Order: sequence, then structure tokens, then C-alpha cells
Amino acid sequence: ERRGYPEAVYCEGKTDAQLVEIARQVVRAGTPTLFTRIRPEQVDVLTDALPDAVYEPTGRIAAWPGEAPAAVGGLVAVLAAGSSDAAVAVEAHFTARHLGRPSELVIDVGVAGLHRVLGKLDLLRAARAIVVAAGMDGALPSVVAGLVGAPVIAVPTSVGYGAAFGGLAPLLSMLNACTPGVAVVNIDNGYGAGHLAAQIAAP
Amino acid sequence: ERRGYPEAVYCEGKTDAQLVEIARQVVRAGTPTLFTRIRPEQVDVLTDALPDAVYEPTGRIAAWPGEAPAAVGGLVAVLAAGSSDAAVAVEAHFTARHLGRPSELVIDVGVAGLHRVLGKLDLLRAARAIVVAAGMDGALPSVVAGLVGAPVIAVPTSVGYGAAFGGLAPLLSMLNACTPGVAVVNIDNGYGAGHLAAQIAAP
Amino acid sequence: ERRGYPEAVYCEGKTDAQLVEIARQVVRAGTPTLFTRIRPEQVDVLTDALPDAVYEPTGRIAAWPGEAPAAVGGLVAVLAAGSSDAAVAVEAHFTARHLGRPSELVIDVGVAGLHRVLGKLDLLRAARAIVVAAGMDGALPSVVAGLVGAPVIAVPTSVGYGAAFGGLAPLLSMLNACTPGVAVVNIDNGYGAGHLAAQIAAP
Amino acid sequence: ERRGYPEAVYCEGKTDAQLVEIARQVVRAGTPTLFTRIRPEQVDVLTDALPDAVYEPTGRIAAWPGEAPAAVGGLVAVLAAGSSDAAVAVEAHFTARHLGRPSELVIDVGVAGLHRVLGKLDLLRAARAIVVAAGMDGALPSVVAGLVGAPVIAVPTSVGYGAAFGGLAPLLSMLNACTPGVAVVNIDNGYGAGHLAAQIAAP
Amino acid sequence: ERRGYPEAVYCEGKTDAQLVEIARQVVRAGTPTLFTRIRPEQVDVLTDALPDAVYEPTGRIAAWPGEAPAAVGGLVAVLAAGSSDAAVAVEAHFTARHLGRPSELVIDVGVAGLHRVLGKLDLLRAARAIVVAAGMDGALPSVVAGLVGAPVIAVPTSVGYGAAFGGLAPLLSMLNACTPGVAVVNIDNGYGAGHLAAQIAAP
Amino acid sequence: ERRGYPEAVYCEGKTDAQLVEIARQVVRAGTPTLFTRIRPEQVDVLTDALPDAVYEPTGRIAAWPGEAPAAVGGLVAVLAAGSSDAAVAVEAHFTARHLGRPSELVIDVGVAGLHRVLGKLDLLRAARAIVVAAGMDGALPSVVAGLVGAPVIAVPTSVGYGAAFGGLAPLLSMLNACTPGVAVVNIDNGYGAGHLAAQIAAP
Amino acid sequence: ERRGYPEAVYCEGKTDAQLVEIARQVVRAGTPTLFTRIRPEQVDVLTDALPDAVYEPTGRIAAWPGEAPAAVGGLVAVLAAGSSDAAVAVEAHFTARHLGRPSELVIDVGVAGLHRVLGKLDLLRAARAIVVAAGMDGALPSVVAGLVGAPVIAVPTSVGYGAAFGGLAPLLSMLNACTPGVAVVNIDNGYGAGHLAAQIAAP
Amino acid sequence: ERRGYPEAVYCEGKTDAQLVEIARQVVRAGTPTLFTRIRPEQVDVLTDALPDAVYEPTGRIAAWPGEAPAAVGGLVAVLAAGSSDAAVAVEAHFTARHLGRPSELVIDVGVAGLHRVLGKLDLLRAARAIVVAAGMDGALPSVVAGLVGAPVIAVPTSVGYGAAFGGLAPLLSMLNACTPGVAVVNIDNGYGAGHLAAQIAAP
Ligand SMILES: Nc1ncnc2c1ncn2[C@@H]1O[C@H](COP(=O)(O)O)[C@@H](O)[C@H]1O
Ligand SMILES: Nc1ncnc2c1ncn2[C@@H]1O[C@H](COP(=O)(O)O)[C@@H](O)[C@H]1O
Ligand SMILES: Nc1ncnc2c1ncn2[C@@H]1O[C@H](COP(=O)(O)O)[C@@H](O)[C@H]1O
Ligand SMILES: Nc1ncnc2c1ncn2[C@@H]1O[C@H](COP(=O)(O)O)[C@@H](O)[C@H]1O
Ligand SMILES: [Mg+2]
Ligand SMILES: [Mg+2]
Ligand SMILES: [Mg+2]
Ligand SMILES: [Mg+2]
Ligand SMILES: [Mg+2]
Ligand SMILES: [Mg+2]
Ligand SMILES: [Mg+2]
Ligand SMILES: [Mg+2]
Repeated sequence: ERRGYPEAVYCEGKTDAQLVEIARQVVRAGTPTLFTRIRPEQVDVLTDALPDAVYEPTGRIAAWPGEAPAAVGGLVAVLAAGSSDAAVAVEAHFTARHLGRPSELVIDVGVAGLHRVLGKLDLLRAARAIVVAAGMDGALPSVVAGLVGAPVIAVPTSVGYGAAFGGLAPLLSMLNACTPGVAVVNIDNGYGAGHLAAQIAAP
Repeated sequence: ERRGYPEAVYCEGKTDAQLVEIARQVVRAGTPTLFTRIRPEQVDVLTDALPDAVYEPTGRIAAWPGEAPAAVGGLVAVLAAGSSDAAVAVEAHFTARHLGRPSELVIDVGVAGLHRVLGKLDLLRAARAIVVAAGMDGALPSVVAGLVGAPVIAVPTSVGYGAAFGGLAPLLSMLNACTPGVAVVNIDNGYGAGHLAAQIAAP
Repeated sequence: ERRGYPEAVYCEGKTDAQLVEIARQVVRAGTPTLFTRIRPEQVDVLTDALPDAVYEPTGRIAAWPGEAPAAVGGLVAVLAAGSSDAAVAVEAHFTARHLGRPSELVIDVGVAGLHRVLGKLDLLRAARAIVVAAGMDGALPSVVAGLVGAPVIAVPTSVGYGAAFGGLAPLLSMLNACTPGVAVVNIDNGYGAGHLAAQIAAP
Repeated sequence: ERRGYPEAVYCEGKTDAQLVEIARQVVRAGTPTLFTRIRPEQVDVLTDALPDAVYEPTGRIAAWPGEAPAAVGGLVAVLAAGSSDAAVAVEAHFTARHLGRPSELVIDVGVAGLHRVLGKLDLLRAARAIVVAAGMDGALPSVVAGLVGAPVIAVPTSVGYGAAFGGLAPLLSMLNACTPGVAVVNIDNGYGAGHLAAQIAAP
Repeated sequence: ERRGYPEAVYCEGKTDAQLVEIARQVVRAGTPTLFTRIRPEQVDVLTDALPDAVYEPTGRIAAWPGEAPAAVGGLVAVLAAGSSDAAVAVEAHFTARHLGRPSELVIDVGVAGLHRVLGKLDLLRAARAIVVAAGMDGALPSVVAGLVGAPVIAVPTSVGYGAAFGGLAPLLSMLNACTPGVAVVNIDNGYGAGHLAAQIAAP
Repeated sequence: ERRGYPEAVYCEGKTDAQLVEIARQVVRAGTPTLFTRIRPEQVDVLTDALPDAVYEPTGRIAAWPGEAPAAVGGLVAVLAAGSSDAAVAVEAHFTARHLGRPSELVIDVGVAGLHRVLGKLDLLRAARAIVVAAGMDGALPSVVAGLVGAPVIAVPTSVGYGAAFGGLAPLLSMLNACTPGVAVVNIDNGYGAGHLAAQIAAP
Repeated sequence: ERRGYPEAVYCEGKTDAQLVEIARQVVRAGTPTLFTRIRPEQVDVLTDALPDAVYEPTGRIAAWPGEAPAAVGGLVAVLAAGSSDAAVAVEAHFTARHLGRPSELVIDVGVAGLHRVLGKLDLLRAARAIVVAAGMDGALPSVVAGLVGAPVIAVPTSVGYGAAFGGLAPLLSMLNACTPGVAVVNIDNGYGAGHLAAQIAAP
Repeated sequence: ERRGYPEAVYCEGKTDAQLVEIARQVVRAGTPTLFTRIRPEQVDVLTDALPDAVYEPTGRIAAWPGEAPAAVGGLVAVLAAGSSDAAVAVEAHFTARHLGRPSELVIDVGVAGLHRVLGKLDLLRAARAIVVAAGMDGALPSVVAGLVGAPVIAVPTSVGYGAAFGGLAPLLSMLNACTPGVAVVNIDNGYGAGHLAAQIAAP
């Protein structure tokens, strides 16, 4: 366990045997652990090895133990610009909850429909930390940061095609946010964004 | 003269002698001509050679003859996200006017202050073509295109530093605008944007 | 429905369940809708859920309702440089028609055979907006824009290999078109090009 | 004034006349304001126009009024990996102080000499937010984040040459920090990092 | 045989027939040979054709003859920052052993847990050449090189996602190592790193 | 002298002392030599040291001895798309002549004005090798290669701004020429293009 | 038929139906035609539709009619640096032969074994045009061009991994060949290289 | 002093006052120190502050104390491909000597003239470590590594223009060296290469 927060296992490149062995150690040591970027064919292996874990398919993430700790600290708000960005936003939301924060999730509030963003002002102004996931033009964090005083963690997503270049376009856009109060994590790194938001909103 | 529009002379790499020679030909043939990207040290050479030209220092552009034609066709609206984007916006505005369109220019309406964008809705909805110049995150065209039915010509600017990479960040952002109705011209190409807007708004 | 134009659903990352749910909402609300970038395995799901939609396999696009509105406004001409660029050109043509414009489509008129481009001069000069799809060297928009006064919307395609870098080569080429009157949309974004052309040619 | 924090004027591309005009408005409205990225030749103009401002030459930043507000909220720790990163770190430190936070600055604690990093553990563990400025390999934020529970704001700097590519190397390195709890701002953006740290450590 | 070291066959693009033919030549000529980057479906073909070869599945590498030569020269230490970097580290370790050096392998000693790196100081200080494989931020070689006097061969790995860009992030990071004594080989090139380490540690 | 062709001295990074020393050696050995990319401040040094050399200021190139050899072999045609590409075209033309070929130079025949290209068909069809220098969209080589059977050597130039990225745009465009019969040399490398053309057109 | 040379059909993105239709037209018109980049699953379709075509599997290329024209003009020499570059070299060789040139092919003569390059000096000096295919470091064209007076057409290949970036490394290397007399075609473009070599060596 | 080797001061971004202060500390502590990348205008400041230092203008490097230690350990051979690469090679040579190794320097042995490389075989085979500095195509390290058993440290230089992209071309080329036994340091990093060579050749 790292500085009081759960461990995280990055499942992408792990073999089934490695996952089973890690699961065994997790249970033996009783370490609260998140499993991230679980490939579809790994789900059964993991849930067989850790029956009391909870698996969240949209965010391809699991937690052991399955129940999130009681929510303490400030509110974490998680926004997804498009419905295709939901996977990353869910990963962030799930992470923040399992690190012990209250968290609210809002999907599909892109800048093409400003009224929907403005309709969430109350939530945004109540938050202690805001995660914004967006692909393509990555414009949402600049707009959100202009509306609130809380720090904004921007997560570029690989949603898009062509000159989105796998998330490079929103990554650069977010790094150049014209509003102060925005910091950026790796493309599709919902886990990292949720972790950081939980640290910021810690009691 | 190309398809009824004035000629344009790209001054960047021209010697003084070349400019003087071009000025002579322009007058002799009576061809309405724009001079773009005039370097400071070229201004005197040009205005000496073409006394009845008009020079616009912010946009580093000049026109001969100096008076713009009567405005016909639809309205061209030109927006600059930040005050540092003014040079590019002025170049577009000047071009559209000298190609014969009515044109209005608005500076410093970035997405960090949404109310200022929304305060220009009447102008935006009156326009037949909209030019939006923005550097850094290049987020403004997506927001504008979501508010209007007119085509938006986005011009990324080289304003910014670091990961703006000389305008690459807003360029990619604009190419990936999450709202349809946006097309993009080269970084800092106010001339091209104004020209295209004038063609779109032609009577 | 956005500013009077049909909605568009970007199908690429959607699950079957999501598509079925969207189809249900579309019918319930009676919103004219385009479905873009439909993956082959999604076709049956979509056409089962929306029997009165029309699916265009070359452009991987569908429209509900299936019949395009009566054509009003200026003519949209859509050109593809090579036969491999047809998919993108068809997507643009289909979009322009379903946004209510008259549209003509010409395939395989690349710059390697100039006489074929020149053979289409009458069509090009009749158009109010021209879409040009090209991969590889992306040279066609510059040539076309030199022949006409109408605005040219250039769509780089990902056709090619090696140093085409998935459409980067024609993208950069088109952004640097040596003829004014060219603006660019995202790589392979036939939908966006057709949409913009329809806006430009609006009555 | 934006959301309770001072305004910031980005001086890089401003003319002397623009600066003087902005200074006049600042005084008239009484808005606490930071002036960032002041070019050497702008210093006299600015300090003449705003005699009661304070100018910090290492960080090329100034504040009006000159005295920072009383320090409230959590501690902001600012680290520079090398002495060449001091300019960026000072800009962050100055910003955090003038946004009202207590802030401590430590220069020259790169990973090549781990004992110096470890010698600052007490400070790091006392901080509510940590800014880490580093160029070249950008390795310091990963190391720091592994030692503490507070959020780390990483600022890549353009210090270095060759394959540092103007700060691209540390930027990518930091975005891929192998420890959670790191977010990144633009290359050389000490202002943005200090601003975000002040927001995180707000009371 | 090249300068006294075994030959190496790069299996990636070879057909089964080519592999069998190469195996025949190797046996006929009696040339000690390494087979690198063996695809899973090639393993049987190769081990059938060379029954007395040894195949190492983690590193996707094989050697003929199977037994490594007696270990002479200085010690080669091979470190992997994360468990996902093991494949590359094993390839380097196997290569160094089969080029005749004593070699020790340590997995999962990333900078996020400094104490584990520091726990290996005795090994690192005993080595004549050190190979360090790391993906993501590529920070480990800088830290290691600061602790020892031996040359460090850094191998960036393609482990990671998003802005890791297939190993570009650790590659640039390592090229900019802030500690002298680090040189870099191609992304995922465990073979090249092991070869170079064996040359450095040659008796 | 290399394979029968004159030597070339790349002047860009040479000190005055080095140039004088090289000039001395050239005269002593009697080696026909080209001096390329001569900086303005080097011209006097060079012409003082080699009074019987000929210096061509547009192409920043000089030859010793000054008189070109009698023209033998096939005709080399050199085209520049814009007047700003003249420097590179002149460098190629001068090189071809001083390697002994007949050469003709045509400036300002870009694709924006197709009739001017078509007006040169007789020259193009008479040539044994064609050099085409173009910046920005780099479209001219594709068009030319479609009109003739002779090999086309394309030289991208750094003319342009923004997304021309110092010649990257025409470089990629030319590498992807949709007409066969085009090969490419380095950006601004008129010397290399003229040299290759002279080799192709050798008797 | 283009300027006297056979037509070429780029098969990569064609459907079976398109190929069959093209084959029908080719036979009807009697146009000699090359089919390039044939995917394995297209081979039967093509050879069924054109029984008297010849298919070359290594180069994934076919010609109709199957028999190459009598060889006239200068010799084309085609070199591959590694055995993995054979596919590209064979494509060039096959193209040159079917455009009517005598052609010789040499595989596996990389710079790591200079003696093998030097062992081919007689062939290289007999050639009128030389094609050099190489991946990875792309060093062979520079070495070859230093040994001969004939023009060298360099073809970068996508052979390699990691920092080869799909052929970018040898592409840049070849564009910067330190020996004059080298021009470059697109990555893996054996067809284009063979075509150009045939044009250079035309009688 | 780091692990027994002299300290190094990177002068690029230092002010005169900082240099003087560092010089004072160096003398006081008696630490052998190298000063690298000294800007011309810094030379006098440094040599005034450290009269018994030695300054090497070609390599822009200085050492204190001025006399290099007695040479112990294996021989370091330093090669420069072109005369323009001399600065980097001299920096490496000077560094290796001042770290206590015997070192030999050879300038202008590029692959365009293979006989000159081959003429240095005796030196190359006598060396315990070889530094190879090359710009443009970066082909020399591959050729050298194929001739010897000693490790080769390749240093890409920023010599060249256009598609050399400031040293990116030789950097990628060297990372993809087709011969094993090559590792790479940062562009223009002669200091790092000399340091590493001295470590490899340590007694
Ligand atoms: N600022 C500009 N940006 C892009 N193209 C321009 C610009 N100004 C002029 N041009 C174009 O450059 C060409 C004139 O180039 P030149 O003959 O060098 O003056 C014409 O095609 C103009 O349309
Ligand atoms: N092919 C496409 N390319 C770019 N944007 C698209 C495309 N299809 C739909 N869109 C836009 O994507 C948004 C819909 O995204 P979604 O909610 O994920 O279906 C709308 O703003 C559409 O205008
Ligand atoms: N150094 C800086 N880096 C990034 N953004 C800045 C900087 N300084 C000021 N800004 C932002 O730039 C905007 C002011 O720009 P301007 O109107 O051109 O002075 C505000 O949104 C500031 O928050
Ligand atoms: N403008 C140029 N571009 C590319 N290579 C050149 C150029 N001028 C000379 N060279 C080559 O550079 C080498 C001479 O370099 P140097 O010894 O530095 O003068 C020779 O191989 C020339 O062929
Ligand atoms: Mg905010
Ligand atoms: Mg719109
Ligand atoms: Mg036009
Ligand atoms: Mg932490
Ligand atoms: Mg070390
Ligand atoms: Mg041709
Ligand atoms: Mg040659
Ligand atoms: Mg070797």
C-alpha cells in the first residue's frame, strides 16, 4: 500500500498466471487494490481468483475489496465531453470513490451544447476537484475552468480519428488551456485523474 | 487577377528591388492587389512605390488601391480569442473588406470568459461566414460553431509557447472540432481565412 | 436537432445496445439523423432498429428518414482524386444531399491526369461549394481552387502508406495550398466536409 | 478578477503602449494583477507605469500591488531539479505567494543526487501541494510522488538541448510518470503551476 | 560469426521455410547463433529444426548451442523498472550470458519505490556494465547512474499507453538523462543492450 | 574529385580561416570545386581567396574555375513553382551546368496557374531530367510527372510558414506523389538535385 | 497507358469486384498493366480473372501480360540491405524488368558487412541506375553512392521496430545522405523506385 | 565530485555572476571540474576567474585544473564523420582525456569515402571504446561497429539542414544501427560520449 492509498495493478500486459498470483498475494496481505485496464478475456480469471472483488465493465476496472470506503473529504466531480469518453470518466469516478471520496459523474456535456455545461454549474461549484475527460478538440476543460475556482484535472481521450492522432490533439489543447487552473494527465488515464482528484480533495 | 478577386503578393521573402518592380507592374496593369506579411523594414519601400496604397500595421497588410470596394454580399464576422490574436484577425478582416464584403471585427472573446462570447450572439447569427482566430487551446471555433448555422473558418495562431508548438496545438484542436461546420486554414493565415470568408459570403 | 440541420451519431465506438437505444429515441422524437462511420458488424443492428433508414455502404453512412429532403440552395460538387478516396467522397455527397442540397459526385480525377480535371470545368464552375477528397500528395485542391471562384473544402484521406502517415501528408499539403480559397477538415471527415459545403451553399 | 484570484497579463507579445494602457486600467479598477513572461526591455515601461508593483527578475514576473496577501491555506512546496530550472520555479513560487498561500522554494535537487531529494522529505511531507520543475529527463516528479501523499504538479522546462526538443522530453516523461499523483502543465508554465497549487492548497 | 561474438537471426519477418534453412546452415557451419524476437507460432518450427537449442519464452529468444559459454569478464547487471519490462530485461540477460558474461537479473525496481533500488546497491556497485530497461517515464537510468561509476545502457520499452507513444517518452527521457554515464539503444532492444554490455564487460 | 564530378564544399559552418585554407588546396590541386550555401559574410573571403571563381548570389553558390565545362549529355530542365523558390532552383541549375550539362531554368510556374505549366510542355518533353523546386503544398512535381516521361527530381523548399513546418509539408507531399517517376531530395537541397539530374542526363 | 509505360493498379484497398472489373477492362483494352501491393486473399481473384498474368509472391506484384518485354536500355541494379528488405527490392526489380530494362537483384548486402558490398563493385559500376532498399539505419545508399557515378534511388523500408517508426528513420537518413547522387522515394515503394530507375535507364 | 570523476558545469544558461561564484567554489573545494558548452561571451569571465584552467575553443569546453591526469586504462578513439562534426568530437576527446584516459582523435572520415575509414582500422582495433560523431545520415557508427569488437558510442550532431531536423535524422539512424554494439547519447552531447567512453575504458 502506497502512502495510505490502495495499490493498483496495471493488467494490460499481465498473463493469467501472473494475475492469479497477484490476487493470491493481495488476499494474503489484505491490501486494498485496484485492477486497471482489464482486458475482456482477463475478467473471468480475475473474478474467479477474487470473488469478493467488484468489476466495473465500462471503465474496465475492479476493486478488492468490492465495497468502497465511506466517503470522506471534498466532492470530486467527473465530466465526460462525449458519450464515447464515458469509459475514461467512469474509471476516474470509480477510482475516486474507492480512494474514499464522494464523487459525481456526468456524461455527454461537450462544448457543442453549452447549455448542458451551464446546466451543471451547481455541481461544478460544489466540487473540491473536477476531472474532465474529453477527446477530439479537448476544449471542455478550458470552458469549465473559466466557470469555477476548483482545480481541473484534464484527461485527454483517444476518442476520434485522423488528426486526433490517438489523443495527441486534446492532449496539446489541454496543456495550452487558456484558463489557469488546469493540469493534465496521460491520454485515457482515468485512473490517474481519479487518484489525483482524491488526493486534492483529501480531508 | 484571379477569378475576379485581387491578386496577392506574399512579401516575406521578397527583396526591396523585387517589391519595387512588382509595384510598378501593379500600377501599370491597374490590378487591385493585396500585399501580405510585410516585414517592418519593407513598409517604407512599399508605400514610397505605391503612395495611394493603404497600409494596416497590426495585420502587416496593404492594399492597392487603398480604398476598399463597396461592400456587397453577406456579412463576414471576424473573432479573435485573445488580444494577442489580433494581428491575424485584422489581416482576415482587412482582406474580406478589400475583397468587397461587409465585415465586423471583435477582439478578445476567448472561452475563458463565456459571457463575452455569448454577448456577441446577435452579430454571430447575422453573419454569412465567421472567421475565428485563436492560439493556445484553439477552443473557440467549437464553441462558436455550436451557437450558429453559418460556416466557421478557424485560423490557428502561433500565439503561445511550449506545447503550443508554434500553432500546432490549436491547429489539431480545430481540425478535431467536436461541432460540425468548422474548416481550418494554415497557422496565422488570416489572409486565406478572409479570402475564403469573402468567397463564401459572395452575393 | 442542431441549428436546423440533422443530428449525427458517430457509431465507431458505440455498442449494439447503445445504437438500439439511440434508434428508439430518434424515432420517438422524430429527429432526422445521420449515422456515420458505421462498422460492418453494426449495419444489421441499425437497419433492424430503423427499417425505414437508408444505408450507403461505400460511405458507411445511413440516414433516417431514408429519403433526402428536396434539394434547395446552391450546387455542391464533390470530387475524389482516386478511386480509393471514393468512400470519403460518398460520405460527403450523401451528407450534403441529406442536409438538403443538390450535389454531384465525380470519382477518380487526380492531378496525374490533368485532362480529366479540366474535363469537369463546367461542373466546377456551376458549383456554389466544392468538396475535394484526396490522399497521398493532396495536390488536387490547389489545382481545383486555381480554376474556380467557389470555396473549396479539402478532405485529406488516409489512403496511402509509408510517408503518407495516415493522412498527415495530404493534410499538411492542403493546409499549405498555394491557391487561396481552400479550407481543410479532419482526415477522412467526409461527413464534416459535406456538412460545411451544405452550410456554404444554403439558400 | 476571475473567481477570486488575481488577473494575469501575458506580456510576451504586448507593445509598450498596450502595457501602459493595461497598467492604467489595473490601477483605476484596483484589480490585483500578475504580469508574466515580461521581456527585459518591458521592465522599465511596466515599473514606470506601476511604481508600487514588485518585479521578480529571475521569474520575469511582477505583481500589483507589490505586497503579497497574508498567507492562508496549506503549504505549497516548489522544487527545481537543476539550477537552470530556477526561473520557472521562482515564477511558480511567486504566483502561489501572491495568490495567498505560504510557499517554500528549493533549487537544485535533481535525481542525480538522491540524498539531496531525501534531505527535503520533511518539507515535502508538510506540503499540501508540490510543484516540481524539471527539464531534460523530467525524472524528479516520479521520484517525489513516490515519497509523499500530496498532489504533485509537474512543470517541464525547456532547459536542455538536442533531443530535449524544447521541453518535449520532460513533458512526455512527466505525462507517463510511473507513480500516481502527478499532473502536468505546459512547458515553462511556472505561472500555471503556482496558480493550480494555490487552488489545491486553498483553505 | 561477427568479431568473435555469436551471430543473431532476427526472426520477426522470416517465413518458416527461411527459418528451417537458416537452422540447417547454422548446424552445418557450427556457428553459435542467437534467434531473437521469435513469434509464438515460430517456436515449434525452430525447436524442431534445432532440437539442441534453448528457448527462453519470456524474452522470446533462443540460443544454439543451448548451453551458454563459461562466464568470463566483468559482471553484467540487468534491471527492469516494472514487471512489464521483464521481457526486454530477460532478452538482455540471456544475450549477455550467451556472449559469455556473468549476468544478474533484477525485476521490478522502479523509482516509485526508491528503497528497492537502494536495496540493490551492492549488486550495482559490483557490476562492470549495467543494463536498465524501463518504459513510461524512463526515469530509472538517471537514478541508477547517479549511484554508480559503471556505464549504464538504457533500454526504453514500449510498455505504457497514450503519450508513451510506443516507447518514445522513455527514449527521449533516457537520451536526456541528467546524470552522465548513460547511453541508449533502440526501444525494446534487449538484445542490443545485452550485446553491448557483454562487449563493455569483456575480459 | 569524386567519380569524375567536381568536389563540393558545404560552407554553412566553416570559419573564414577554414575557407581560405580550402581555397588554397583547391587551387594547388587544381580540383574543380563548387562552394554551396555560402553565407553573405563569407562571399568576400571566398572571392578574395579565389579571384577566378564565379559567385551566383541568388543560389548562394560559387564555382572554381568560374567557367562551366562545355555542355554535353541530355537537357536538364529546372522549374520553380513560386518566385520564392528561385534560390533553390538557381542552385540546381548552376550545379547542373557546372557538372557539364545543358540546363534551362523556369521560375514561377505553380499549379495555381496551370496554363503556365502547360505553356512549358515543349521544354519539359525535351528534357532528359527535370528538377522541380516547390514549397508549401509541393503539388507541382505530381502535375509535371503526369505530363512527361522523364524522371522528375523534386526539391521541397522551406518557403512558407505555419504548417509548412520548414519544408516538411512539401517533403511529405512529394514523397507521396500520386504519379510515378518522382524522387525527392532534402529540403532546400538544390545542389543535390542538380547533381543527380546531371548524373541522370550524363552522356 | 501513361507516357509509354504500363499502367499500375494499386490493389491495397480494392474489393474483389473492383479487381475483376479492372481485369476485364485491361484485357479488353490490351493495356499492359502492373498490379501492386496485392493482398494474399486477392491473389486467387486476380489470377482467375487474368490467367495469363504472372504473379510474384515475394514482391506481392503481378504483371499482365506475364512475359516482360525484351530488355533494352541501361542496366538497373537493385540491392537490398537485409534479407527482410527483399520484398521491396523484388518489387523494384520486377517493375524495372516489366518496364523493359535489364535488371539484376542482390539481396543481403548491408553495411555491417562491408566486404559484401565491395564484392558487388563490378555490378554497381556497370549499372545505369541503382535502386537501394534498406530499413533501420538506411545507411547503405550513402555508402553505395560513394562508390559509383550512377544515380542511386533509395527506398526506405518499414523493416525494424521501435525508433524505426515504420520507416521514418531510414527515410530521414536517406534524405540526408552525405554523398550526392541519392534521391528517395516513399517508404516501401519498390514499385516507384523500379519505375524511376527504368525511366533513368531508358535507351 | 561524482563517483570519482570530475564535476561538470553546464554553462549554457548561466549568468556571469553564477559562473564567477561557481569558479570560486571550485577553487575553494579543489574539485576537478569541466565547464561545457561555454558561450563565446563567457570565455573571458571564466578564464579570468580560473586563470589556471585550460580552454578548448573548438569544443567550447574548459577544464580545471588545466592539466589532464596521467592517462590510464584502455584507449578511447574518437571519430568525426565530417569536418563540421569536429566540435562535438573535440568535446568528447577532451572529456575522455580529462577523465584520465588515453585518447586519439580523427576528423573527416565519413562513409562517402570508405577508404579513409578503412585506413583507420589499426586505431579502431586498438581501442577499448570508440566515440563516433556524425550528422546528416548518421551512417558511420554502423560501418565502424561492423569492423571492430569494441563498443561504439554514437553521437548524432545537429550538422545539416532541412530533413536533418536539428539532429533527429542521425539520432534515429544511430538508434537503428544495423550492427550490434552501438549505443547513442543526446544530439551534440560530446561531453556525455567522452564520459561514457572513459567509464568503459576505465582500468
Ligand atoms: N499571407 C499569405 N499566405 C499564404 N499565401 C499567400 C499569402 N499572400 C499571398 N499568398 C499567395 O502567394 C502567391 C503569390 O506569391 P508570390 O508570387 O511569391 O508573391 C499567390 O498565390 C497568393 O495568393
Ligand atoms: N464522422 C464524424 N466525424 C466527426 N464528428 C462526427 C462524426 N459523426 C458525428 N460527429 C459528431 O459527433 C457528435 C456525436 O457524437 P456521439 O454523441 O458520440 O454520437 C456530434 O457532435 C456530431 O456532430
Ligand atoms: N505565463 C502565462 N502562461 C499561460 N497563460 C498565461 C500566462 N500569463 C497569463 N496567462 C493567461 O493569459 C490570459 C491573459 O492574456 P492577455 O489578455 O493576452 O494578457 C489570462 O487567461 C491569463 O490567465
Ligand atoms: N548544399 C549541400 N547539401 C548537401 N550536401 C552538401 C552540400 N554541399 C556540399 N555537400 C556535401 O558535403 C560534403 C562536404 O562537406 P565538407 O567537408 O563539410 O565541406 C561533400 O560530401 C559534399 O558532397
Ligand atoms: Mg478554474
Ligand atoms: Mg455551426
Ligand atoms: Mg478558388
Ligand atoms: Mg504522491
Ligand atoms: Mg554512472
Ligand atoms: Mg513522369
Ligand atoms: Mg554516386
Ligand atoms: Mg562492434
